[in-house]
Amino acid sequence: MSYSVPPLDRLVECFQRLPSIGRKTAQRLAMYILTADNKVAKEFCDAITDAKEKIHYCKQCQNLTDGELCSVCSSATRDESLICVVEQPQDVLAFERMREYNGLYHVLHGALSPMDGIGPDSLKIKELMSRLSDDKVKEIIIATDPTVEGETTASYISRLVKPFGIKVTRLAYGIPVGADLEYADEVTLARAFAGRNEM
Amino acid sequence: MSYSVPPLDRLVECFQRLPSIGRKTAQRLAMYILTADNKVAKEFCDAITDAKEKIHYCKQCQNLTDGELCSVCSSATRDESLICVVEQPQDVLAFERMREYNGLYHVLHGALSPMDGIGPDSLKIKELMSRLSDDKVKEIIIATDPTVEGETTASYISRLVKPFGIKVTRLAYGIPVGADLEYADEVTLARAFAGRNEM
Repeated sequence: MSYSVPPLDRLVECFQRLPSIGRKTAQRLAMYILTADNKVAKEFCDAITDAKEKIHYCKQCQNLTDGELCSVCSSATRDESLICVVEQPQDVLAFERMREYNGLYHVLHGALSPMDGIGPDSLKIKELMSRLSDDKVKEIIIATDPTVEGETTASYISRLVKPFGIKVTRLAYGIPVGADLEYADEVTLARAFAGRNEM
Repeated sequence: MSYSVPPLDRLVECFQRLPSIGRKTAQRLAMYILTADNKVAKEFCDAITDAKEKIHYCKQCQNLTDGELCSVCSSATRDESLICVVEQPQDVLAFERMREYNGLYHVLHGALSPMDGIGPDSLKIKELMSRLSDDKVKEIIIATDPTVEGETTASYISRLVKPFGIKVTRLAYGIPVGADLEYADEVTLARAFAGRNEM
């Protein structure tokens, strides 16, 4: 813009700071808020303030919650012998959308990345270990991302957990359902080949 | 989600109400706000509240501004004989990014759409007409969208303005620069063909 409208620019910048939102989308979102009803803007602010005030980490699994324990940890119907370890709260949402997992979670809030100064102490690994002492847990499913950092974190946790005599599993690698084999990268294809199952 | 975290759900819903933001993006944005510094969330709210309070329509061109006149209308260097008529404030930003237009604007805040009950009185057409009375304006450039509604609005305004003896022009139709001819739709291609220029 060759002219400046400070409050508008400021709002656009705020939107632009959000992940995956570029300049043009930020402008469109800001314009939406500005041209929308005052009620919409107020609700937006209230929702942000309210969520920031009330939401914190679940005492047990470190997922985001507004209670002491999150609804998964406090549910009586979940299988307490399974803990699925994920990097981010979003990953819990993805698992819950699947509707097939009935165990508990543990959110690490990141993955090991020595280059970025993220060591075991920056993650919720101590909190995970303290959950293993009461003999209830039979299996740890490591569902960190299939990236270098995710893999490093998976091996690190696996090495820590094994001495407890608890089974440690990792999500299967392979070709995504619905994908075109032609476009699968070599690493994924090699993993899918190595992990082939009898039909 | 099979479990509910009310303040989080509420924030996700707020983000989802924004244009072009789906469920997954809304969740990612909400998570970003929740895991970010408290300062980020506060700045976001302040920017929304501040913008909503201070920004209104420019008295002359109806663009969004925090002053009485917007910075284009109040600039001494802009050519007052040209008015570019656009549908939305975003369109002004697009024109300003071009850095080639030095005239004024007029924002209609929509396009005629009788089916949706949007008639001439719902748009800032009266405000446009009142700007034509002082003989300064020599040309009206109609830059409404190349849609049915945009076209209808363009013809409507053109018919209103012509009796004033003011030149009325419309943006050229044609093939977008950098596009592949192969993928141009027939209507665009036909327009580009009809509007061909000697080289």
